[in-house]
Amino acid sequence: MIDCGEGAQTQMQKFGLSMMSIGHVFISHNHGDHVFGLPGLIGTLDLLGRTAELHIHGPQQVGELLDFLLHTYYADIQYRVLFHPVDTRQHALIYEDRSITVHSIPLEHRVPSIGFLFREKPGLPHIRREMIDAFNIPVSQINNIKAGASWTTEDGTVIPHERLTTPPTPPRSFAYCSDTVYLPKLKDILAGVTLLYHEATYLHERALRAEQTRHTTGLQAATLARDAGVERLCVGHFSATIKDEDDLLREAQAVFPNTILAREGLVVSI
Amino acid sequence: MIDCGEGAQTQMQKFGLSMMSIGHVFISHNHGDHVFGLPGLIGTLDLLGRTAELHIHGPQQVGELLDFLLHTYYADIQYRVLFHPVDTRQHALIYEDRSITVHSIPLEHRVPSIGFLFREKPGLPHIRREMIDAFNIPVSQINNIKAGASWTTEDGTVIPHERLTTPPTPPRSFAYCSDTVYLPKLKDILAGVTLLYHEATYLHERALRAEQTRHTTGLQAATLARDAGVERLCVGHFSATIKDEDDLLREAQAVFPNTILAREGLVVSI
Repeated sequence: MIDCGEGAQTQMQKFGLSMMSIGHVFISHNHGDHVFGLPGLIGTLDLLGRTAELHIHGPQQVGELLDFLLHTYYADIQYRVLFHPVDTRQHALIYEDRSITVHSIPLEHRVPSIGFLFREKPGLPHIRREMIDAFNIPVSQINNIKAGASWTTEDGTVIPHERLTTPPTPPRSFAYCSDTVYLPKLKDILAGVTLLYHEATYLHERALRAEQTRHTTGLQAATLARDAGVERLCVGHFSATIKDEDDLLREAQAVFPNTILAREGLVVSI
Repeated sequence: MIDCGEGAQTQMQKFGLSMMSIGHVFISHNHGDHVFGLPGLIGTLDLLGRTAELHIHGPQQVGELLDFLLHTYYADIQYRVLFHPVDTRQHALIYEDRSITVHSIPLEHRVPSIGFLFREKPGLPHIRREMIDAFNIPVSQINNIKAGASWTTEDGTVIPHERLTTPPTPPRSFAYCSDTVYLPKLKDILAGVTLLYHEATYLHERALRAEQTRHTTGLQAATLARDAGVERLCVGHFSATIKDEDDLLREAQAVFPNTILAREGLVVSI
């Protein structure tokens, strides 16, 4: 889960998502619209009978909220909530499991703020079934070939690994950048990501206001997406001053056509 | 506003209620399902440009939550949030204005908990227009007569106040009791209230569980309503273990027929 605003548990219920399946929560910064769902979520998980640890990653200030909640409301819950402070000035590996890595993305907002880059680990190459059949390669060798081995036939001919396999599916990646002022230098960290979610609080006609409040405009988010060569951009976190979000979409698409608007319940397949 | 669970601001928006018109919030006890809407509400009121003071009444523990919120998130808001601690052991006047009084109702729950009794102040009697006309009483005298004066005609006849007026509309009252174990002694404080909202977390078949968790059953809430001679009872705060809330309604109505179930968005006219 990434950020947890007020009512997150109600929204999850509405969209049929399982709260119990959350293992890790990544919090960008300690502002209410990104954390006020945590108090209720932690309590509801206990009511649901959770025993598995819940890991929460975020700037140190989020730890203070958790300390307060755990001390004041949840001294007796039946599972552990573990906080992992994230250094908001570093681009660093903060989480890793069998299939993904998560790196922090240093952001700049009115309070310490951090983005998150989720990357699938590279997969193994795919076996070319027809070659396996043609050379009569035993099933026991398939894992070796996936791992990079060639095959030597009975007459001593070496069939190179590349002829036996097709390349692995390219790893997918998702980056989340919110809240932050426009940071052109992020293009290196974000280079080529499959999907970038970036805040776009204002239309560019309010670029000065964006700068002052440490937010980004639609045009700026799209410029970053273009410069980083991402595949797709999703913009969100719109100010209530934006009367028609399609204005913001048009502004962004003029720079980076493959842009979509975030909306409640949106599911993006990558 | 009475209690403020997570998502209260969203619910108010959904039901077309104005957050800005809230002057006083009465909080029964410092459990998440009664207070986790406060963090977001306080912030949204600031975003909406509030300048008027917001008064929050509740057990001292609620003050600790407010201290944390105001210190951590809202050091810079443009209006004042004032906390008024309520002694949860006293039945006492805690608020009064031109038209109503609010008294505390001592409850007993796992943490300090307090109910609230809202009473209209007695109104003035209604003028009998036809008597005013018959005796040719000048408009300037109407307020005196409402306040209790009689009228003396030119020939010296005294028309008593009672002939010139009809009695005032009986003051209405609303009592809110949640969360609490069943407290039969509340019947004196609650005597004759127009509408009693009382928690009924469990069916009476789980009376032991209710006692242990310091909650009330449907049958107990109805017994209290009957013994206090209230006009109407609304029960709510149902446990998720109640599969069919109509079971609870039938249980309560068997003792106190004029019972209704609380549900989202319910409006009760008193």
